[in-house]
Amino acid sequence: MAQDLTMKDGDTPMFDVVFDVKAKAVGKMRAEMTVEAIQPFQSVNHLAIDEGPFQGGEGTAPTPLEFFLTGLAGCLMVQIKSFGKKMRVQIDGLDVQLKAKWEAHKGVHVPYIGAPVSFDIMVDVDSPASEAEIQHLVKAAQLGCFVEQTMSQVNSIGHSVRKSGGDWVALD
Amino acid sequence: MAQDLTMKDGDTPMFDVVFDVKAKAVGKMRAEMTVEAIQPFQSVNHLAIDEGPFQGGEGTAPTPLEFFLTGLAGCLMVQIKSFGKKMRVQIDGLDVQLKAKWEAHKGVHVPYIGAPVSFDIMVDVDSPASEAEIQHLVKAAQLGCFVEQTMSQVNSIGHSVRKSGGDWVALD
Repeated sequence: MAQDLTMKDGDTPMFDVVFDVKAKAVGKMRAEMTVEAIQPFQSVNHLAIDEGPFQGGEGTAPTPLEFFLTGLAGCLMVQIKSFGKKMRVQIDGLDVQLKAKWEAHKGVHVPYIGAPVSFDIMVDVDSPASEAEIQHLVKAAQLGCFVEQTMSQVNSIGHSVRKSGGDWVALD
Repeated sequence: MAQDLTMKDGDTPMFDVVFDVKAKAVGKMRAEMTVEAIQPFQSVNHLAIDEGPFQGGEGTAPTPLEFFLTGLAGCLMVQIKSFGKKMRVQIDGLDVQLKAKWEAHKGVHVPYIGAPVSFDIMVDVDSPASEAEIQHLVKAAQLGCFVEQTMSQVNSIGHSVRKSGGDWVALD
């Protein structure tokens, strides 16, 4: 019988991962971020996004989708390497290709509605381990990759809005 | 009756968004990416991720989760500004805070399993528009933000694996 890789060992989390991002819009489309890791380690990084002329930006930094896709591919890669060590699967080389597609549909009450179409990841591993071990490792890495796990469920994203220093209002 | 903002105007997409990312693992955890936009515009950007010592990396670049969260916050911000222009809602200032939390659960057959817990976005707008207009704009921007739309559905992510130049195998 195939192992159920999603089986959890106990109910208590091993560790929490908590981030706090503060971002300010500057210029046409550019935004500057302070990204603070709060758990399980502490760090502060500064990142900026922009859009190119297609979206009215000035191209001073990569676009949000480029950051998102870099996060997705990178998350799986570090998980393969990290879990490879923990599971004693030697990884001598690792190349990943990620193809992503979305559609924008014209809305009746909004300018357009984004719709994800497909995400395909090709994992090219150089290793003395067996094919079965590599496949098990990649499946395990998917479960350990927080970005893939986020994309594999419906997430309720809370939104609050405040206008000109007024009261915060939670959106439906 | 409240407007259904998710209503689409016709079945044909206005435009497609297609990206192709190629990434190579270098060093302990670092990976270097070539991020190519294929549609609706063409561009090539180079980005790198790393992990800090907690994950066995060397901290030469931000982590995948930092890129992911920058993509999420940035996506909504550019959409608010872009849709603000299209919907004629003046935005004089825009600050966003994003709080994100995941848990890692100990697995039986894998080292751990990532589990998203919460994502909360606070949107602080300076604008002469009415509160209702701002709230409508932020709701519209959520629908136009490709990252939020991706996180709001279950995505099937395809994985293929190849070992040491052998044949490609599609994972279940």
